[in-house]
Order: sequence, then C-alpha cells, then structure tokens
Amino acid sequence: MVYLTRKCEFSAAHYYHNPEFTAEENSRVFGKCSNLNGHGHNYTLEVTVKGEIDPKTGFVMDLKKLKDILNAEVMDAMDHRHLNKEVPEFARAIPTTENIAIAIWQRLEGKLSVAKLHRVRLYEMQDLFVDYYGE
Amino acid sequence: MVYLTRKCEFSAAHYYHNPEFTAEENSRVFGKCSNLNGHGHNYTLEVTVKGEIDPKTGFVMDLKKLKDILNAEVMDAMDHRHLNKEVPEFARAIPTTENIAIAIWQRLEGKLSVAKLHRVRLYEMQDLFVDYYGE
Amino acid sequence: MVYLTRKCEFSAAHYYHNPEFTAEENSRVFGKCSNLNGHGHNYTLEVTVKGEIDPKTGFVMDLKKLKDILNAEVMDAMDHRHLNKEVPEFARAIPTTENIAIAIWQRLEGKLSVAKLHRVRLYEMQDLFVDYYGE
Amino acid sequence: MVYLTRKCEFSAAHYYHNPEFTAEENSRVFGKCSNLNGHGHNYTLEVTVKGEIDPKTGFVMDLKKLKDILNAEVMDAMDHRHLNKEVPEFARAIPTTENIAIAIWQRLEGKLSVAKLHRVRLYEMQDLFVDYYGE
Amino acid sequence: MVYLTRKCEFSAAHYYHNPEFTAEENSRVFGKCSNLNGHGHNYTLEVTVKGEIDPKTGFVMDLKKLKDILNAEVMDAMDHRHLNKEVPEFARAIPTTENIAIAIWQRLEGKLSVAKLHRVRLYEMQDLFVDYYGE
Amino acid sequence: MVYLTRKCEFSAAHYYHNPEFTAEENSRVFGKCSNLNGHGHNYTLEVTVKGEIDPKTGFVMDLKKLKDILNAEVMDAMDHRHLNKEVPEFARAIPTTENIAIAIWQRLEGKLSVAKLHRVRLYEMQDLFVDYYGE
Repeated sequence: MVYLTRKCEFSAAHYYHNPEFTAEENSRVFGKCSNLNGHGHNYTLEVTVKGEIDPKTGFVMDLKKLKDILNAEVMDAMDHRHLNKEVPEFARAIPTTENIAIAIWQRLEGKLSVAKLHRVRLYEMQDLFVDYYGE
Repeated sequence: MVYLTRKCEFSAAHYYHNPEFTAEENSRVFGKCSNLNGHGHNYTLEVTVKGEIDPKTGFVMDLKKLKDILNAEVMDAMDHRHLNKEVPEFARAIPTTENIAIAIWQRLEGKLSVAKLHRVRLYEMQDLFVDYYGE
Repeated sequence: MVYLTRKCEFSAAHYYHNPEFTAEENSRVFGKCSNLNGHGHNYTLEVTVKGEIDPKTGFVMDLKKLKDILNAEVMDAMDHRHLNKEVPEFARAIPTTENIAIAIWQRLEGKLSVAKLHRVRLYEMQDLFVDYYGE
Repeated sequence: MVYLTRKCEFSAAHYYHNPEFTAEENSRVFGKCSNLNGHGHNYTLEVTVKGEIDPKTGFVMDLKKLKDILNAEVMDAMDHRHLNKEVPEFARAIPTTENIAIAIWQRLEGKLSVAKLHRVRLYEMQDLFVDYYGE
Repeated sequence: MVYLTRKCEFSAAHYYHNPEFTAEENSRVFGKCSNLNGHGHNYTLEVTVKGEIDPKTGFVMDLKKLKDILNAEVMDAMDHRHLNKEVPEFARAIPTTENIAIAIWQRLEGKLSVAKLHRVRLYEMQDLFVDYYGE
Repeated sequence: MVYLTRKCEFSAAHYYHNPEFTAEENSRVFGKCSNLNGHGHNYTLEVTVKGEIDPKTGFVMDLKKLKDILNAEVMDAMDHRHLNKEVPEFARAIPTTENIAIAIWQRLEGKLSVAKLHRVRLYEMQDLFVDYYGE
C-alpha cells in the first residue's frame, strides 16, 4: 500500500457570514473575514490517494489522470472564483477551510477508480491548514 | 550602508477590468482574472530599507517602528479587503501586482525617517513577483 | 471529524547536558550541543486539533481562541527564552526536540474544550522534526 | 512514543521504460519521462522512526547514527547516480517515486536498532510525494 | 520602471566532464558530478524582465506571452532532457549552473519585445543559485 | 560576469544589551531580545561571489573551496555558539542581524581569490533579513 500526494494551488475570494447571526455576531465571530466585500487566498491543496503499485508502470495511479480529475472537479470550479457566489456548496455553508476541504473530498471521492482517496489537506495560508479523511 | 528587509503577508480580493475595453477585450487580455465576482491571493510583501547602523543599538531602524508603519499604511488598508472596492488607488488603476507594489511604495515612502525606502517586492503567488525601486 | 493545524514560531536558546554524565560523555553524546554557553533555534510548532465542525460557524474551533492558548501556554513561556534556565520542565529534563514536544503537549492538553488535541509537531530546523500524539 | 523525522536530499537521474511495452506504449504511458537519455530530480527524503525517549539523553535515537545509516544505505547508493543504471533495485523495476520509496524502506528497515522505521516519504518535486509505511 | 519575475521549474540530467582533462583531473575537479551515467536536478528558473507599466492593462508585459516564450525557448528544450546529450549549447560547454544560466539568457534575450530581460536566476538546488545579467 | 550564491545555516544564541543603557532603556529598546539568559535562531546565510567563468570548468569558483572557506570562517566560529560570549566581534558590538552580516563579510572578504565577494545576506528568521555589500 503506497500513498501518493499531489499538490496544486488555486486563488479564490470568500467571506464568512451567517445570515442567522446579527451584524454584531458576524463581526465578533468572524472578525475581518466578515467583510462582505470579500478577501482572498492562494489555497494550496494536497490530495492523497492510496493503492497498490501496478508492476507494469510502477504507479499507484496515472498522474496525468489524477491531474485531469483535479482540474475538472476542483480547479475549474474554484480557481479564480468567488467561493460564496460561484461554488454551489457555499450558497449556504460558510466557505471556511474546514468546509472547503470537505467539499473537495466529496467532489473527488467518486471520481477515482484504481486508487482510493485517503486525505484532502487544504492550506488557507502557510500557517493554517485542515485535513479531512472522509470520516 | 546596510539593507534591512521585513516580510509580511496580507490576504485580499481583486479582479482585473478596464472600463474602456469591451467585454471581449477584458476577457481576452485578463483571462480568468476578469471575473467580476473577484478572486484573491495571499500577497507576500517584502519591504527593504537602507541606512547606516546606529552604533548604540546595532539597528538600521527599529523593527517595531517599521512594523507599526507597515500595519498602519499597508495591512490596515489592504489585508482582508477587496482591493478594487476598498483601496482608493484602485478606484481607477487596475490592481495588478505591478500597480499594488507602486501603491505600497507611495504609502511608505514619506513615512520613514532614519532609514530610506529601497525596494518594495510583492509576491502575488510563489511564482510571480514584482520589484519597485521608486524609479 | 476534521483536523485543524496552526503553525507558530518561537526563538529559544538551549544546550544538552546530563549532570550524571562525565564531561567526556556529555561531549561524545551531545557533540556541539553540549556547549554550556548555549546555542539556539527558530522552532516551528504545528499544533493539530480535531473535532466536529460547528455548523453555525464552519469552524472546528475558534482560531483566535487557539492562538490565545498557544500564546499563553507556549509562546509566553518559551519564545525569546533560554529553555534550560527559564522553562521549569527543563530544570532537569534535557530540552531535546522530543522533550520539548512532550512539554508542549502537556501544557496544551487540558486547555482545549470544543476540540481535542491530536498532534504536536515541532521542527528544530527544517530537516529535523518530532511528532507527539500523547501516547 | 515519539516520532522523529530527518530530511535529506539526493540528486539522481532516471527514466521510465517497460521493456514489455512497445515504443508507443512507453511513450503514451510515461510521456516525457520515457526519454531514454534520462532526466533528473532533487529528491527530498523524509525518514521517520518511532520509539521511546531514552531518559539519559532525551533522544529517540542518536541523530548522528541515523545520519550515518542514511548516508551508507541511501546517499552513497543514490546521490549523483543514474537510478536505472547504477541502483540494483531498478535493473528491472521502474524507478518511479513509489518504487524508490519502497527500495529505501527495504534498505533501512533492518538497519535500525533502538527505534523502529515508521515511514519513508519521498518528494520527486515539491508538488509530488509518496509515503510508504512498510505495509 | 518595474521589475517582473516569473518562476518555473524543469527537471534535467547532466554530468560534468572536460575531455581535455585526464580521468583523474575530471574526478578531482568535478567530484561526484563527473559520473558519466549522469545525475539530475529540479532546476528552478526565475526570469526577471523590466519595463514601464502599460496604463491600459497595469502590466509590464503579458504574463501569458512570457510563459509561452519560456515554454518555447527553455522548457521544451531542457525539461525532461539530458543537458549534455540533447541541448546544443552543451555539446561542448559544461552544463554547470553558470553556463545553463547564460544559455537561458541567450535563448530569451531576443525574444522579448515590450519589456527588457534583466536577470536570469537559476537554482540547481535550494542552497545553490546563479544570477546572470547579460554583462 | 556571473554571480554565484551558496546558502548555509547555523544555529546560535544571542541577546541584545548595551551596557551604556539603563536597564529600562535596554528593555524598552530591545524588548524580549534584552533577556540576558539569551535566546537563539537558525540563521540562514547566503554568500554571493562574482567573477568570470573559467572555461575549463564552467565554474566561477570551486564550490568545495567556497564551502571550506565558509566552514572555516563562519560555521566553526558561529554554529552552535553563543554569539555574545564566544565570537570576538560581539564582545562589544551588539550581535544584531546587521552587525553579524558585517562581521561575516569581514571574515570572508580577504579569503577569496578567483572570485570577488559581492553580497552577504543573513536571515534571522524567515521574515527578517539583512544585505551587506561592503559599502
């Protein structure tokens, strides 16, 4: 069993706002992130798959195929986008690093065949990241 | 003469749009950056000052003071902001990495006393950065 | 279940010395680290907590609260300190990366409420780090 | 139980080629990596061992000893080498990141005494790495 | 005048060998790099151009165009290649970091129009890099 | 003319104290750095030399020779040392990043022969560094 991790990066805008909170609560809970004009990040995504090595290729899975899936499911949907306004998962859920990581897991999970999705790690900044294992 | 550089990071949203361009031109020239919903980045800023060392302290300038200036002039204005909507310089100028670097230079230049501003380096992403020397 | 990791950095001095060793043993076992004048490092600390996402906020735990705990329990005690001389845990235990990681775990473990401490990772340098899971 | 990780780096050449594939298959499956002239990488290796802390030293294992083992088993064999031509494991197996990680595990596993090998992580590039736990 | 820098990465094999040297001289001067089987690196290239900002776009030069030039002149020629065997400049010159940086400068210099090539920086590894300004 | 840069790292302890200042002044000017127990850093040093390429080797200067000079003049003197207590330059001068960079320049300047020392860059932490050109 080998674990293979691929990194990619996307740039997106977002803000944090709970419509059930008062303005004061939104400001207190979310601080500067509650600015409705939005701000943004370079998100770094690490996707880890696990599987057996195919002895004919030495690969757990074809990297070109993995990249195509990441492009179709994540990059096209989230890169250079406003997460609150353009990504359906965040029409209601708040696009925190936690929730984005789960959304990426759900987008990728059914798309892999030879290997199994093991972990989604998402960095919002260099000093803050989230891991999700589908549990 | 010693050059002292301090890094800091801010997270902001922006988009690229020239109102004198047609929609087609904006899309062709600015690509994914022309999305008016905005996207965002973790900008890394390196500010370099130069000066003589004060023999009493061993410092070119007090780092706490430099940090205070960066906070007042750059971080408060740009961090967790939408550059097009909230930073006056970009009411009309397009907030490209080039233009943001110049805006930061202009905000800092008159605020230093013992040392002289030498360079503003701004990273939009790890693989793209701009240097401005006030020339 | 989501795992949230926060990084921070502290700068400290230390040396390695076992008073039960002879001078020769201390020198042989600890090499350059046995210099009693001390040397130092920029330690990078990654603290990982795990928990369920609060649907009202999208957070596993409030990041400001986590930062306050890290500041009170770790940064105030260890940043810009001499570990052997100023941190009680190292009055007798040798402040190796291993022992510092455990000390940080013990300082943090009882202080978290909504989330559970999962891992303390401590880098002494870029090419050397330790993980402790409280086991 | 503490986990200790040491990083090192080696520079090697390789190519991907399955002699049972036709030229077309090799080209389709391995892309630019199938160039028989070879290309190369700076591989970053992270070796993690786990064990109890020796109270006399504060160490899971002696770092100098670990470094000696890494030098003897990995660096001497792979650094500044052509993996296909000079490393016996790759006389037949294809030197993919997956297979190199396993070869490193097998070279190291029997050589440790006080600590136990836990994980071999190998980066081929910054955005691609493999983990192997000996399972 | 603004300086714009773009990074990219390529993976190549090479060896150091001067046919006018004896085997002993090649080994003494070039050490492990003299292994004729070759070894390799992930080279990181930073290309800096300088120019005035176009007020219509806010750009010193179009980044897509710069990327196309880098791909055509550098990446296609050097990525996943054996520098000694496949890059004409190194049929005779030794492909040291110094000589590769100059070769890249010469390949790029005549291809830029609106901006002027200012610097080629090439990293062979994280701790070794070369700058060339065309002087 | 080519510029060649080599990085290395050393770990040292220091504190900031001016004996002509009162205790209050030392505390106000130097903050946490005034703690006389000392603290420490992993300093990253970049040494840049410039020169013509030797056509026989493709090198500006022999890297092994450069490393030997760095080891003899800087690493042996400063690595795993307390700068205030063990490095003669700081018996009186305060070991700020500025002053350490100048001390390193002075130690290296006369030791190079084929190439010329161009710049000493010293990082105290990732977000703070100093450049000195001998001017």
